[in-house]
Amino acid sequence: MLDNDFHPAWLPDAALQTVGSRRLALRSPDDEAGVPVGSSSRDRQLEGPIATEHTDRSSSRRTDRAVLATLSAELDRATRAHGGAVVGHDDEPDLLLALDPADPAPAEPAEPAGYRLLRAAGRVTVTADHPTSLLHGWFHVVRLGAVAFDGPDTDEHHAPVSALRMLDHWDNVDVHPVMGQVERGYAGGSIFYDAGHVRADLSRVTTYARLLAAVGIDRVAINNVNVAAREARLLTDDLPEVARIAAALRPYGVRTHLSVSFASPVTLGGLPTSDPLDPAVRTWWRDAADVVWRAVPDFGGFVVKADSEGQPGPFAHGRDHADGANMLAEAVAPHGGLVHWRAFVYNHTQDWRDRTTDRARAAHDHFAPLDGRFAGNVVVQVKHGPVDFQVREPVSPVLAAMPRTRVALELQVTQEYTGQQRHAVYLGPAWSEILRWQPWGDAAGPDDAPDGGAPVTVADLASGRGPGGQGGGIAAVSNVGDDRFWTGHPLAQANLYAFGRLAWDPALDPPAVLDEWIDLTFPGAPAELRAAVHAILDESWHTYELYTAPLGIGFMVRPGHHYGPDVDGYEYTPWGTYHFADRDGIGVDRTRATGTGYTGQYPAPWREVYESLDSCPDELLLFFHHVPYTHVLHSGKTVVQHVYDTHFEGVERVERMVERWEDVAGLVPDDVARRVSDRLTEQRRSAVEWRDQVTTYFWRKSGIPDEQGRTIY
Amino acid sequence: MLDNDFHPAWLPDAALQTVGSRRLALRSPDDEAGVPVGSSSRDRQLEGPIATEHTDRSSSRRTDRAVLATLSAELDRATRAHGGAVVGHDDEPDLLLALDPADPAPAEPAEPAGYRLLRAAGRVTVTADHPTSLLHGWFHVVRLGAVAFDGPDTDEHHAPVSALRMLDHWDNVDVHPVMGQVERGYAGGSIFYDAGHVRADLSRVTTYARLLAAVGIDRVAINNVNVAAREARLLTDDLPEVARIAAALRPYGVRTHLSVSFASPVTLGGLPTSDPLDPAVRTWWRDAADVVWRAVPDFGGFVVKADSEGQPGPFAHGRDHADGANMLAEAVAPHGGLVHWRAFVYNHTQDWRDRTTDRARAAHDHFAPLDGRFAGNVVVQVKHGPVDFQVREPVSPVLAAMPRTRVALELQVTQEYTGQQRHAVYLGPAWSEILRWQPWGDAAGPDDAPDGGAPVTVADLASGRGPGGQGGGIAAVSNVGDDRFWTGHPLAQANLYAFGRLAWDPALDPPAVLDEWIDLTFPGAPAELRAAVHAILDESWHTYELYTAPLGIGFMVRPGHHYGPDVDGYEYTPWGTYHFADRDGIGVDRTRATGTGYTGQYPAPWREVYESLDSCPDELLLFFHHVPYTHVLHSGKTVVQHVYDTHFEGVERVERMVERWEDVAGLVPDDVARRVSDRLTEQRRSAVEWRDQVTTYFWRKSGIPDEQGRTIY
Repeated sequence: MLDNDFHPAWLPDAALQTVGSRRLALRSPDDEAGVPVGSSSRDRQLEGPIATEHTDRSSSRRTDRAVLATLSAELDRATRAHGGAVVGHDDEPDLLLALDPADPAPAEPAEPAGYRLLRAAGRVTVTADHPTSLLHGWFHVVRLGAVAFDGPDTDEHHAPVSALRMLDHWDNVDVHPVMGQVERGYAGGSIFYDAGHVRADLSRVTTYARLLAAVGIDRVAINNVNVAAREARLLTDDLPEVARIAAALRPYGVRTHLSVSFASPVTLGGLPTSDPLDPAVRTWWRDAADVVWRAVPDFGGFVVKADSEGQPGPFAHGRDHADGANMLAEAVAPHGGLVHWRAFVYNHTQDWRDRTTDRARAAHDHFAPLDGRFAGNVVVQVKHGPVDFQVREPVSPVLAAMPRTRVALELQVTQEYTGQQRHAVYLGPAWSEILRWQPWGDAAGPDDAPDGGAPVTVADLASGRGPGGQGGGIAAVSNVGDDRFWTGHPLAQANLYAFGRLAWDPALDPPAVLDEWIDLTFPGAPAELRAAVHAILDESWHTYELYTAPLGIGFMVRPGHHYGPDVDGYEYTPWGTYHFADRDGIGVDRTRATGTGYTGQYPAPWREVYESLDSCPDELLLFFHHVPYTHVLHSGKTVVQHVYDTHFEGVERVERMVERWEDVAGLVPDDVARRVSDRLTEQRRSAVEWRDQVTTYFWRKSGIPDEQGRTIY
Repeated sequence: MLDNDFHPAWLPDAALQTVGSRRLALRSPDDEAGVPVGSSSRDRQLEGPIATEHTDRSSSRRTDRAVLATLSAELDRATRAHGGAVVGHDDEPDLLLALDPADPAPAEPAEPAGYRLLRAAGRVTVTADHPTSLLHGWFHVVRLGAVAFDGPDTDEHHAPVSALRMLDHWDNVDVHPVMGQVERGYAGGSIFYDAGHVRADLSRVTTYARLLAAVGIDRVAINNVNVAAREARLLTDDLPEVARIAAALRPYGVRTHLSVSFASPVTLGGLPTSDPLDPAVRTWWRDAADVVWRAVPDFGGFVVKADSEGQPGPFAHGRDHADGANMLAEAVAPHGGLVHWRAFVYNHTQDWRDRTTDRARAAHDHFAPLDGRFAGNVVVQVKHGPVDFQVREPVSPVLAAMPRTRVALELQVTQEYTGQQRHAVYLGPAWSEILRWQPWGDAAGPDDAPDGGAPVTVADLASGRGPGGQGGGIAAVSNVGDDRFWTGHPLAQANLYAFGRLAWDPALDPPAVLDEWIDLTFPGAPAELRAAVHAILDESWHTYELYTAPLGIGFMVRPGHHYGPDVDGYEYTPWGTYHFADRDGIGVDRTRATGTGYTGQYPAPWREVYESLDSCPDELLLFFHHVPYTHVLHSGKTVVQHVYDTHFEGVERVERMVERWEDVAGLVPDDVARRVSDRLTEQRRSAVEWRDQVTTYFWRKSGIPDEQGRTIY
């Protein structure tokens, strides 16, 4: 069994009851009429990855056949568990999954582009031209449950808004002496690696791929963007092991990407340089790519963190990031591969005494001038904010600054700065806010008047619907490890779920996505459990914001591990993350008028909105302005009283979260109940610590007492 | 050769020129008259530890014979190098080393108790009743050089003030994931261990023992007081390896001690408890000690860190530290062994919000009530200050509070909080100040009037000359590793040298000790080199104090590694090291009147001196009092102006240190010159960082400008 010693997340067998109790059929063009496809491969399928024979045909054939076999096995599994039957497609099935590929097949493998759902008189037909899309359609029906069959007749087409939806694993092969097996991982070890080796048993990887397929994710980068010596070898010596991982992901239509070191030609190839314009270097990468695709024909491409936090890159050779990325793009292009090139480039050896250098400016300063120079198969991957995954940042101006570039939005599912999966923080609302943000306000683009059309959102830019029409999709750092609950905190599963769903459709409502997750994860959940999970999670992101760094200032965490408060922890470091608090006030002046000029990286109207104290939103005030503690917010409170009030309120909210869980813990399995209780206990302790340190810090600095006279130390 | 790939420190061959060019003789009671002793064993001696046959005779015999063979080899080596000769003791030697043991030999091995130096008409005779003392006498003559022979006729007795002089190594066998091979080590790896094993080649350990013999140290604890699982096994499975280390130390009269885990009966012995009053536990320890002494007949004893920073101890069993220490003392007593029991016990999970708990009080609160209950072979080892080896602390009140206990003073040669051997900080003056400090002021003891006799010093207490007459000696954490220069910073060798010399004779003048070190390390040093080294080191401790945490407040270092500034780094942690700075003032109120009452742990006059703002010395003001930034010091400056002035002065002093070294670097070997230059460059960078962070912190907090208008950020 796949689901043996770990939690089934949002795919417990019970979640398949509605479909599994019905008559199901699968049809592909290769079938003899009426004969169920692939049922003979069922047992093999359930035990591990499909071993398809190697042929000279296109790589997509291999994936296609593996995924079709998976679908067949899914139908078998569901019906066996719940009393239905797999029938011939002409045998009046309740649900027919039909592969109907374009004819003739395109030379390049098409991106899975969605599926059609037809319901007529209680019978459902899902049609797709790509097996992976058909698999996504299957899980859509699973997700809908009874509604899939009981609803009125319909004919719908479901397609992901963005063609590229990827999860990045910051997993190390070797255990890193500081970062451990998974960098910024809070769910145990890696599901891929175990202390220096790819795991012998990769069955859990296949189960992971199944969870991803159920939320529409079909690309995974399997190693840390900080590529150390051991991990670099995945590109060469360890390709057979990478192929094993790819084989474990493939049955669920998930393609494998690798993070690579820009210095590989030197460190692995023995060349004297990694200069991207050096012919020998270009040849080395082309050859390396050829070998990779021979080993993994449906390989996805490379992810690169270059010239960032000590990683090698083109700067050392006097080249720029377009030179570097395009060189790799040339190497992977013959195979239809992608290069995900991260825009997270800044000076991490900054001098805190130098107030003219602004880390927030760095990505735009580096990348905006390169717009138009990147090859078509380069995706420039941009963190959602200009600094680093803080609980509150403005949206990165880079996303709107490169219309002639495929730009991807990078999110962080792993809760590095949002409680590290010890705190219950549902990030759906945060991502939704980012995805819906309108870089040109109510205008459709840089040259449009506000009434020129539908306002363009970040989701539009990532999916190629914005000005310029490029789109690099959405990527995120995974929160999964070898923990029993996959994500450490059982409720953090909801973040992985929501990421996939919002990447597929950014218009989804986060509480509704949470409902989907609750329905699947706790089949038949009583109303009070549903209500409690909503009460705990719906506002949890804002709750976390309340008791941590205030008003968008960010980075008041302990240096290094980033857990818990340390208000001055980064204040005098080289990392460029300062708050400049003194006895009079706090905040970073990023205005054009008197500060670093970062506001000028935004198009109108935001360049003016953020520039002015009058219009800057309260929640970002200290990100853009240095103000006295007595500055009055739009809320009517002073900055310092806001700090006191929010921090006390944040703890009170956590206390209510704890109480709500205690009320309903008996409604979930004991192991889930205990783990969530333990984590909530720690969240309460940590929230109190945050409250007390932050309020004490501001009280000691400002000398302004709390209007309500609460205890401050 | 012993001195091949690493620096000879204070024993380069050239340092032996004066003695080596003369006629030398060695006489022991076993000799046939006139026949040079041990010359046939010379080659073996130079290649490694002596392999003495195992006999049933007393353990001291084994040491004695090894040390005599060493002496013989020393004479050979010196005369070979410098043209002298080893002659018969009746053959009119310039220097005769004569062993003249007490007759009859005592049943228990005596502590090496010193030597007699007789000079008559340019001929010198050194006599001792113990081979190790004779060895110390030999190195005394080496240290004196020409003066040994040229001075007026004399008859002197030289004895160490304290019988127990020990170095503690915080070396791990396994590389600790955070602390590395050597905890708080700044000189590379361990000389004993290499990543999980005792080194195969221990020749450097013997060379280390030679350096120690030359400064009079004769006991070494070879493993970290934080005893992890791997290290615990040194007590049992790895005894043959411990015996190898002991064999490598023995030729220079250095005895081996082990740090042991109080939980050993459980973790190693499989017993259900480590309760010190449990008969099976007592038996286990007695048996363990028997086995240790069988393997290492001249073994010294155990060092224990119990109930401290997570180490196991008697508290878990409802017992106190006397119960725990006496149980071990009983086990080692039959072998003449010692138990060094550390008084570094405090609550390291303190709540920063709780101002009533004071870490400074902890050792006295725990140990003073136990005075009189410790066995005679227990040494209670007390850190020099009440907190943790800060650059400036008051002397620990525990030292004067236990007249019926053998109390040892613990110093830290490794520069954990004093620049980590990247900063040139000569600690001789700091230790001298501690050793000369008078716990009862001008009185000789608690019941004496100020004119009642010679004032008692800390050195007196450690050597058994204080009230009660006990004495536990002096111990220190070593600063030595496998670095080419032994200590990372070549000038940090002077600290190891000075520790040995001051432990032998606390009355020595630190600059004079530095002169000895210069003469030996740089034989024939020109006057300008000597002057420069004095200019760099004589005031270096105070210089470091100037640019780091001010006025005795301590602990403004980066948490974890403890290097570089982080003013608030420990302010909200569980470690009990707070400064309580707010916009108005700073400092810890430890008075009896309004604070934690710590001042009450001191006898008169200090309990009054420290209690009063009027009499508290400036350099300890913030350790004892919380004052406004505008408080005027005895110096006439305000606290905040003092902070500004000292920090700018500290950097200016470091700049002068750099210049002085540049002037004389050509006078020392290139490798020494380069290493010192590199370290001084880092010291200057770090001092600037300290200055800027600390002055900025106080400026931002206080809002009071620098009177001199210097740059503050």
